[in-house]
Amino acid sequence: MNGADSLCDTLLANDVDVCFANPGTSEMHFVAALDRKPRMRCVLGLFEGVVTGAADGYGRMAEKPAATLLHLGPGLGNGLANLHNARRAHTPMVNIVGEHASYHIQYDAPLTTDIESLARPMSNWVRRIQSSDDVSGAAAAAVAAARTEPGGIATLILPADAAWGQTAAPVSQAHPPAPGRIEEAALLQAREALRNGRKTLILLSGKALRAGPLETAARIAARTGARLMAQQSNGRMERGAGRVPIERVPYPVDAAVKALEGTEQLILIGARTPVAFFAYPGKPSVLIPEGCDVITLASPADDLPQALEQLADAVGATRDIAVPLAERGQPDLPAGALTASAVIQAIGALSPENAVICDESVSSGRDSFKWTWNAAPHDFLQITGGAIGIGIPLATGAAVACPDRKVILMQADGSAMYTVQGLWTQAREQLDVVTVIFANRRYAILHNELKMVGAGEPGRNASRMLNLDEPAIDWVHMAQAAGVEAARASDCAAFVDLLRAALARKGPFLIEAVI
Amino acid sequence: MNGADSLCDTLLANDVDVCFANPGTSEMHFVAALDRKPRMRCVLGLFEGVVTGAADGYGRMAEKPAATLLHLGPGLGNGLANLHNARRAHTPMVNIVGEHASYHIQYDAPLTTDIESLARPMSNWVRRIQSSDDVSGAAAAAVAAARTEPGGIATLILPADAAWGQTAAPVSQAHPPAPGRIEEAALLQAREALRNGRKTLILLSGKALRAGPLETAARIAARTGARLMAQQSNGRMERGAGRVPIERVPYPVDAAVKALEGTEQLILIGARTPVAFFAYPGKPSVLIPEGCDVITLASPADDLPQALEQLADAVGATRDIAVPLAERGQPDLPAGALTASAVIQAIGALSPENAVICDESVSSGRDSFKWTWNAAPHDFLQITGGAIGIGIPLATGAAVACPDRKVILMQADGSAMYTVQGLWTQAREQLDVVTVIFANRRYAILHNELKMVGAGEPGRNASRMLNLDEPAIDWVHMAQAAGVEAARASDCAAFVDLLRAALARKGPFLIEAVI
Repeated sequence: MNGADSLCDTLLANDVDVCFANPGTSEMHFVAALDRKPRMRCVLGLFEGVVTGAADGYGRMAEKPAATLLHLGPGLGNGLANLHNARRAHTPMVNIVGEHASYHIQYDAPLTTDIESLARPMSNWVRRIQSSDDVSGAAAAAVAAARTEPGGIATLILPADAAWGQTAAPVSQAHPPAPGRIEEAALLQAREALRNGRKTLILLSGKALRAGPLETAARIAARTGARLMAQQSNGRMERGAGRVPIERVPYPVDAAVKALEGTEQLILIGARTPVAFFAYPGKPSVLIPEGCDVITLASPADDLPQALEQLADAVGATRDIAVPLAERGQPDLPAGALTASAVIQAIGALSPENAVICDESVSSGRDSFKWTWNAAPHDFLQITGGAIGIGIPLATGAAVACPDRKVILMQADGSAMYTVQGLWTQAREQLDVVTVIFANRRYAILHNELKMVGAGEPGRNASRMLNLDEPAIDWVHMAQAAGVEAARASDCAAFVDLLRAALARKGPFLIEAVI
Repeated sequence: MNGADSLCDTLLANDVDVCFANPGTSEMHFVAALDRKPRMRCVLGLFEGVVTGAADGYGRMAEKPAATLLHLGPGLGNGLANLHNARRAHTPMVNIVGEHASYHIQYDAPLTTDIESLARPMSNWVRRIQSSDDVSGAAAAAVAAARTEPGGIATLILPADAAWGQTAAPVSQAHPPAPGRIEEAALLQAREALRNGRKTLILLSGKALRAGPLETAARIAARTGARLMAQQSNGRMERGAGRVPIERVPYPVDAAVKALEGTEQLILIGARTPVAFFAYPGKPSVLIPEGCDVITLASPADDLPQALEQLADAVGATRDIAVPLAERGQPDLPAGALTASAVIQAIGALSPENAVICDESVSSGRDSFKWTWNAAPHDFLQITGGAIGIGIPLATGAAVACPDRKVILMQADGSAMYTVQGLWTQAREQLDVVTVIFANRRYAILHNELKMVGAGEPGRNASRMLNLDEPAIDWVHMAQAAGVEAARASDCAAFVDLLRAALARKGPFLIEAVI
């Protein structure tokens, strides 16, 4: 067989059976090999930001890596922003980046670039395949790197001659290490902190935010009087009725400082010490009070559910301790003029059991938790790295991973434009995604930020950089252009009707919510 | 003033007065400063690939740099593919990449990345601003780097605290070096080669492909019997009636080898020795015959028109030597079924005087020169780095640079999707661009490449990665979604009617040519 076949076989042997792809000439032997492996599901994205963002959504929900297929440095470049988000989400992913044949690189043909330099900032692991015989071992190592707790971005550079050359190398198996275990000293330190009477916050992220571990954390809190919070952004949370309701650290600096005020001890379980998303003159970078002790009980690479169990045992948070779980609310539907909050309220009221709610609503979604505590139980996936343009791909990939679950995307209009091509993939694959566009026709978050700079009312230059009007984007036409059915709502009654209808059917649908 | 004001003032003082932008929070002080400088024209792109591609089109036509405004590493990442093309086109450009405040980077906030690592592969020059006092000097150095012959990508990293901090530093002036002069030894070597009776090819690129220098080159060819060709891809060529017709080195390896067959001596004037765009098993990387002597008369950084004059003098190619110029053909309009060639034939027949024709037609445009030798005189801008998704932005930027010229874009459908957001900028700025989409609903080039791999007929996986059908993209809806008027043609008569109408009006228009 050739190296490309070896690569496909190795991916499949290691349970990587979905490939989000946008191939080019240098990857044609790999495409031919994929064509010989019907077990591999190939999903085309019409732009690489869709490819990597979809692999992120898939990896978060499937809890195993998808492969991506990217065309040389520029193809990787196009995918970097969503790789950045995926890296921050600790999503497992294996990127296959095609490269010129090794002997051809010296000629600096037009598409030649320094792929490693581009890959490293957004990858946890990078390796260039040396030969056809090296393919299988390298691919297995990539899968192992991607599957190393908490999950990471493995980028494999595949020279064309390694793909087309022959090899008899056996198919390698990935051997990811087991997740880390917490240290006894850290456990004792955390236990001591939870007994010393000082104001303590337990900050959670990663797999600590699944339903079971959250209940353990809630028992610890109930037993010790500590507070629980989630990190500001997290790859995946299990929320809604029947789950422990937990707030996230707020995004705005002032609100975050206020929320963390008085904290004397911070215990980190898969989370990091909260820092400001951006720096502002005269505002702090670190959001916890000065002098607050920080105890890292478990790092993201550790077995977080196990860490919580150990801590629960240590503080005597026994299983009989009752914890408050969110209750299913009565559907409380909004009426009147359509606002961002009304949109979220309706989603909270109508989203079905076991939905996957993806959130790139940016400023429109600041209140989103308020309206969804008592929604039907759901997974909540958010933008983790601040690189906008994740929403449509993320929902696309989540829907590929979870064909039997409804995916609902809360999507800001400005961010939606970044990877709008993903709608086509939803149509192509007939994915069960309802996209709600918050059409405020501006980068609303930046209007706020401009005010904070003290620049006063925006003039012509600022307005033209921060507003998306003149012309307004027609999202119904946009969706239809990509083969996705769509409709527009300008008041609550129309929105609720559309959302009900969209949720009752199967397949992609887009609602432009004019707010 | 603050550093952001200092930056604006320095750019304006150095004749950089257009800024293609997609700002974020970390650039808000710069946005506020731009708002205080109405002389700076700020053009919003709804994705950074639009921003950098538009700056490329602008730089190629304006012959001076535009600024870009990009938001941290991910914003730069989104712009990299078109920066890659611009670098290969030797386009002058100054990127301003916002960065966290310098003291904030240590906290690894979500948007923190290694910007330098991302910037270097696609930049000729990279510098991180150290302080508010450093802003003006760094910005002037960036402009100088961008304007150093033949033009280059200068990337300036602007930490937020350098933007908001106060400075009294004076506004710096850029001092780009003069273009290089050819060496006497190279001139003598070229002269000798042109006299020794061996088969000689003069290969041109860069500013050697403007009307005047081309005539000088044609006189040299007429005097010496040498052949003239242009490099395969070039940032800008002056073509059409009244200009010297010149072929490019073909893209397919076999055709290129055939075109270069028998060449015993190659004289490079701003061009590089032709190499294959991609490597293929059993085909050569270097396209000239073995043993062919290569003489570099002038490198891209040299004064190419001057080099040609010196060579003309050296070989006695006096101004009285007549050179063949293309004549204005009778409009020969296509009829019947619409094909890619028919589309180009119609464009060749109908394009007005002094149009700017941008070409990202990929496989559909392989015959494009054949139909446009005798078109009205025009500038021809092509994709230079092979990173698809340049067409719509390139045309956008060219139209900003040349408001009085009609811009015609020949655009493949698959590539168009990459930066489709650029249509909105055309609508926002009411740019005079006619976009013709070659809607063959497939990555046609890759179908050919798959055949060359010997993979036979594509199966399900390959088809689903190489075809853009199921669903077909509706380009009329797509354009209308972005505020651009559009219509569809499926036969020659309808296409010719639409093209005539689109060329007769002002403002953006898109034609979906179903081929």
